[in-house]
Amino acid sequence: MKVNQDVFGKEVLNTDGVIVGKVHDMEFDDETREIKSIIVKKGGLTNTLNISKGEYVIPFDMIKAIGDKILLKDAFEDDILI
Amino acid sequence: MKVNQDVFGKEVLNTDGVIVGKVHDMEFDDETREIKSIIVKKGGLTNTLNISKGEYVIPFDMIKAIGDKILLKDAFEDDILI
Repeated sequence: MKVNQDVFGKEVLNTDGVIVGKVHDMEFDDETREIKSIIVKKGGLTNTLNISKGEYVIPFDMIKAIGDKILLKDAFEDDILI
Repeated sequence: MKVNQDVFGKEVLNTDGVIVGKVHDMEFDDETREIKSIIVKKGGLTNTLNISKGEYVIPFDMIKAIGDKILLKDAFEDDILI
């Protein structure tokens, strides 16, 4: 799978079908070269106004599927977001 | 290390200090999540005119360092480029 072609800019949906944000970056381990997490930017008004940082770091383990959209697993809850 | 922030768009240099191109994409294994290669786009006239495909797939093992520029190892030769 290609990062730019297949992942970047894609909408991330939670199990309720609600858009969490769009993939802005991916983080990988310098030693193992394994992808650890995706960095998702929230859209919307609060982000535009710079009220919130609007950035989520989601562990790659929480991703259920990468298709036209990225689907998260059940365990994903707003509480654990940074 | 972050893909977008630290890798994308960076110039890739061979051991002669010659610019091979800029990082356009990265490929990772769907199962192991390990980054396998970087996809580098050549700049220059031939690319603009669409004469050549102008795209290199460089195995991650051939990267010596990722700093302000990305440096390749000695083994890198034009012959092996796709």
